[in-house]
Amino acid sequence: LIAFLMRWGVVSTAKIAGQYFLPLTTSGEQVVAVSSRNEERAKEWASDKVPAIEHVVGSHDELLALQDVDVVYLPVPTAVRTPLAMKAIENGKHVLIEKPVAATAEEASHILAAAKDRNVLVLDGTMWIHHARTKLISEYLFQNNAIGAVQHISCTLTSPLLNPGTNIRANKSLEPHGCLGDLGWYCIRWILFLMNNRLPVQVSGHYVLGEGEEVPFSFNGLLIFDKGESASFFCSFRAARRQNILVSASQGQLSLENFVTRNNESEFTVNKASEAPEVVKVPNCDQMAELVSAFVELAKDTTTNKFTHFEHSIDSMKVLDALLQSAENSSPVSIS
Amino acid sequence: LIAFLMRWGVVSTAKIAGQYFLPLTTSGEQVVAVSSRNEERAKEWASDKVPAIEHVVGSHDELLALQDVDVVYLPVPTAVRTPLAMKAIENGKHVLIEKPVAATAEEASHILAAAKDRNVLVLDGTMWIHHARTKLISEYLFQNNAIGAVQHISCTLTSPLLNPGTNIRANKSLEPHGCLGDLGWYCIRWILFLMNNRLPVQVSGHYVLGEGEEVPFSFNGLLIFDKGESASFFCSFRAARRQNILVSASQGQLSLENFVTRNNESEFTVNKASEAPEVVKVPNCDQMAELVSAFVELAKDTTTNKFTHFEHSIDSMKVLDALLQSAENSSPVSIS
Repeated sequence: LIAFLMRWGVVSTAKIAGQYFLPLTTSGEQVVAVSSRNEERAKEWASDKVPAIEHVVGSHDELLALQDVDVVYLPVPTAVRTPLAMKAIENGKHVLIEKPVAATAEEASHILAAAKDRNVLVLDGTMWIHHARTKLISEYLFQNNAIGAVQHISCTLTSPLLNPGTNIRANKSLEPHGCLGDLGWYCIRWILFLMNNRLPVQVSGHYVLGEGEEVPFSFNGLLIFDKGESASFFCSFRAARRQNILVSASQGQLSLENFVTRNNESEFTVNKASEAPEVVKVPNCDQMAELVSAFVELAKDTTTNKFTHFEHSIDSMKVLDALLQSAENSSPVSIS
Repeated sequence: LIAFLMRWGVVSTAKIAGQYFLPLTTSGEQVVAVSSRNEERAKEWASDKVPAIEHVVGSHDELLALQDVDVVYLPVPTAVRTPLAMKAIENGKHVLIEKPVAATAEEASHILAAAKDRNVLVLDGTMWIHHARTKLISEYLFQNNAIGAVQHISCTLTSPLLNPGTNIRANKSLEPHGCLGDLGWYCIRWILFLMNNRLPVQVSGHYVLGEGEEVPFSFNGLLIFDKGESASFFCSFRAARRQNILVSASQGQLSLENFVTRNNESEFTVNKASEAPEVVKVPNCDQMAELVSAFVELAKDTTTNKFTHFEHSIDSMKVLDALLQSAENSSPVSIS
């Protein structure tokens, strides 16, 4: 028996589910089950996997009830994440859940309470948090105070939506937050991370529904922090692909591109007044494998520290909820 | 007699006034007068100028009344720009006015009406508009449609305020807009230019007054355009120097740094999907000399086209006014 080996069940055959199979198996984990509401699709998904998957089932509930599944991965649409996560936790299973972690922060809090109650891990699939670059940025900003006090963060994340007529990202009943959930989540989570996990005190959001659109296709967010610092982001399905962050601080700036992408090699740039820019190169890092390692490590943790990541997920949901509320009321929303 | 030669009066001895002396004289223009409320300061300012300045006077009104002044340059504080501009125009003189062009858009409209009435030119000192890079960007965006339809512009302009206790930029009675006038003006004007001189339909502004501060030291602006496009900017006296613009469009991005700075060599970057970034190098260009040339050329123009630049200045003032109003009422403001 390998020390960290857990038996995983993958709920749904979404594209991202396929991307986790390799990191799981190469990390010494075991995928023992996959489910789809369409059993044929589950069989097709399982057909090329090595080692072979034992349980290939046509019902998520059936997978969640399996005795030999220790942990489930939930890459299902946002609207159905919470009931499936709650059922998995009730059945005593650890849960790796895609983001946004729920339809609302309140739902996410229920998930956390249930996980604490059953003493199982719940963690979201925001992979870049576990990337080596992210840890290095944290050192520059917080341990070394490389650029002084952060004053503003500007964040742009754009990715064209393919087939908007049939894409579930444009379907309000499945993905109610539209581009704010799909792209804005990364912006919000990065901003909170770069602000050392502080919550803003006030947010303003804005979107315009285009003809025939049920969900935001573009979203502007503004976050105000308690010392007057601010952050703004723009995310959109309407613009060509780009990922860009600029952190403006009292003594310089930190900037990065491709802040989501699963790049192996990566970098960020530190500018200080009257010095040449420092381009910090980060060695190869498979962030999905890092996420799997972190998950397995945290699942063994017996302290409440294992829930810190999910508390940050809930904070991101609070900001996301408040941004949507602000956009719908055309008025800033306070966060306590 | 040189064809384009005009006789300039420089009103005030502000630092930027000194920066115009060389471009004026090397462009074949003649500086014939300088005024300061403090006559000693005027004398000191004039002392090292070649060719020597004929009229060195201790009163702005005295300069504005001089028969042999054709054009006045007004680098005076924002709060006193309009009365001096109006008096200059009444005296039949062309006016080059620093920006923001007035305390409000309404004041700016009065200036334009008076200039049209007396058939003299009024132009503001936004120098980068006359830079070769700006014209090249216009070609890429509008003539060549290089990156498709603009969806969002993100703009950051930060510059630390030296000596905030005594700097007139922090003095509400002289510079009522604070960093929004000093830095935000450039952001607004660039955004409107990059949107092909369209006005937004709605804006939102936000600032927090720090302890002992009379004017905004940091400002966040959001501009919404009629097809749902947006632009956001952050400007601040609290962060290290940086000038950064990212234009996100349907087919790619255009980005530039140092969008204000009087750099001789400059560049911008065009990104298109699945192509390597194109860094467009722009040859040497002295944008202040270009501004002087444009001024002299426009002053000879007998059509109303000569007022197009100032109409854009008024549009920028409208946006600036609305942003301040929005910030003060914590509510979006519509622009008609």
